[in-house]
Amino acid sequence: MKRPLQTRIVHLSLALLCGLLTLVQAQPDPLPSWNEGANKRAVLAFVSRVSKEGGPEFVPINERIATFDNDGTLWSEQPIYFQLAFALDRVKALAPQHPEWKTEQPFKAVLEGDMKALVASGEKGLGALLMTTHTGMSTDEFSKTIADWLATAKHPRFKRPYTELVFQPMLELLTYLRANGFKTFIVSGGTVEFMRVFAEQVYGIPPEQVVGSSFVTRFQPGTNGPVLMREPKIDFVDDGSGKPVGIQKFIGRRPIFAFGNSDGDQQMLEWTTAGPGARFAELVRHTDKDREWAYDRQSSIGKLDKALDEATTKKWVVVDMKQDWRKIYPWQ
Amino acid sequence: MKRPLQTRIVHLSLALLCGLLTLVQAQPDPLPSWNEGANKRAVLAFVSRVSKEGGPEFVPINERIATFDNDGTLWSEQPIYFQLAFALDRVKALAPQHPEWKTEQPFKAVLEGDMKALVASGEKGLGALLMTTHTGMSTDEFSKTIADWLATAKHPRFKRPYTELVFQPMLELLTYLRANGFKTFIVSGGTVEFMRVFAEQVYGIPPEQVVGSSFVTRFQPGTNGPVLMREPKIDFVDDGSGKPVGIQKFIGRRPIFAFGNSDGDQQMLEWTTAGPGARFAELVRHTDKDREWAYDRQSSIGKLDKALDEATTKKWVVVDMKQDWRKIYPWQ
Repeated sequence: MKRPLQTRIVHLSLALLCGLLTLVQAQPDPLPSWNEGANKRAVLAFVSRVSKEGGPEFVPINERIATFDNDGTLWSEQPIYFQLAFALDRVKALAPQHPEWKTEQPFKAVLEGDMKALVASGEKGLGALLMTTHTGMSTDEFSKTIADWLATAKHPRFKRPYTELVFQPMLELLTYLRANGFKTFIVSGGTVEFMRVFAEQVYGIPPEQVVGSSFVTRFQPGTNGPVLMREPKIDFVDDGSGKPVGIQKFIGRRPIFAFGNSDGDQQMLEWTTAGPGARFAELVRHTDKDREWAYDRQSSIGKLDKALDEATTKKWVVVDMKQDWRKIYPWQ
Repeated sequence: MKRPLQTRIVHLSLALLCGLLTLVQAQPDPLPSWNEGANKRAVLAFVSRVSKEGGPEFVPINERIATFDNDGTLWSEQPIYFQLAFALDRVKALAPQHPEWKTEQPFKAVLEGDMKALVASGEKGLGALLMTTHTGMSTDEFSKTIADWLATAKHPRFKRPYTELVFQPMLELLTYLRANGFKTFIVSGGTVEFMRVFAEQVYGIPPEQVVGSSFVTRFQPGTNGPVLMREPKIDFVDDGSGKPVGIQKFIGRRPIFAFGNSDGDQQMLEWTTAGPGARFAELVRHTDKDREWAYDRQSSIGKLDKALDEATTKKWVVVDMKQDWRKIYPWQ
């Protein structure tokens, strides 16, 4: 009777020792595409602080909400927002059914590739473009159109599908946060249904965690079952001051971590950091014209001006793409 | 050397055997408050079919979305919607600051407990009541007011906090679905921020999984940090045809399981069951005047008429509270 008991104690001790060794051995770097430096250390330190049970800044898992802008933060947004590229391609695809577009702005400009005339059509022109390409069909039809486009369209500079122009360091950050109990959300100005088509596969963010701008939909019964029709009326604009509103509306609690890249994200970062306890706000600055693009204060797309000033004042972390990111796209 | 190795093999075998025994021993009933019968079997069979990997009706975990109405489905709604009870109590609490309410409807009716006059004030009166008690403050202030009320208010019949009038069989069903990979959502006509205050603690449903009616909020910067102010303007009505719209807007994919109790849930059940693959729609019928209430086709609150007819035609499961539920409230 004595030997087996001793043997069991030895086995138990060995098992415990193995467990401890596993715990103390060096963990692989969770953010390998981020260069070493203060910005990388800041994120790692924040996550460590809020995850440390019993620590002074511990945050329960259900309150670990992280929100990310999409355009310019999770993927590129040049030379035009990718959703606008979709809209332009839709106009071309629908043109045969609309002979009147040959003479009607902004459609004429799109069909002739006249970007100057398109810009000159202003908000009204862009509005007409969006309404025509994004409404008037059922939600299912619209999602299918987007999926088909994403599967075939290529980015003009990189000749790759748009979904390959996502930032590898951000994919790693999303994974790292989720591994530490964070629930990751997109809170972006783009139309919610456009992002929902690829967000789960590309970012690991399910449709119900995507907040965006939206059009009104209407429930319509029918003999083949009900459909939701997309109406030519804006329901919600998830940009600027709309982002905290969208966060409250769709998520219902304040994030503790927010990441953006432009003035449109400023209020989201303000709202996030104004809550009690540990908070983290971060911006990515596009500084790499060779590997991606370089733009900030003067850009018409993804303008980063006021938010950059506030980041300096409030010590928000500002990522310098060229300095901080070893790799930009997954395939580079 | 021989003995320890043999001993280790014996230990390993014993451990494996214990594991296997645990697996094959009878599982405890996941729905102990549901009486045995066709309705209980239908739910169990559905969950088993969609969870069976490789089976013909298997649904991947990320698509296992279940939506529940709240009033009358997860908790009681008599003699008046609990949120209306909150609004009436708020009028009484705010009355000292509003001497004019002594003569002004619908406030006069509320202060005098004159339900007939309150009902006579109609939609306009109810609207004024809601605007006064639900808007004009920040989102944080409003949430605190609700939490304080829920902590102290008692239901007139049962003399218990309103959050104790939740249905034990539904709590079990929510837990059972989640244990089988479902993501559970509330999709209810009540104001979203009212439900979000207690849904996580009471139902295990986090704020970001609560869809409801809402008021417009406005981001307002301030010296003590920004706030979201609640404006006296309805943003969204999550009832009837609004429920599929709300599902699309907030969840972004169609549920495979939906549970309601009134005509206001009819379109949610239609939308849910109109999708491809395995689908499940269920209604609870209030048939137990002794333990809860009995009402359906003629009721002004939670009217169940057209949806009941459709349930019969489409073979949706209709729970008979008296027959099917062994227990109604957790404390009974």
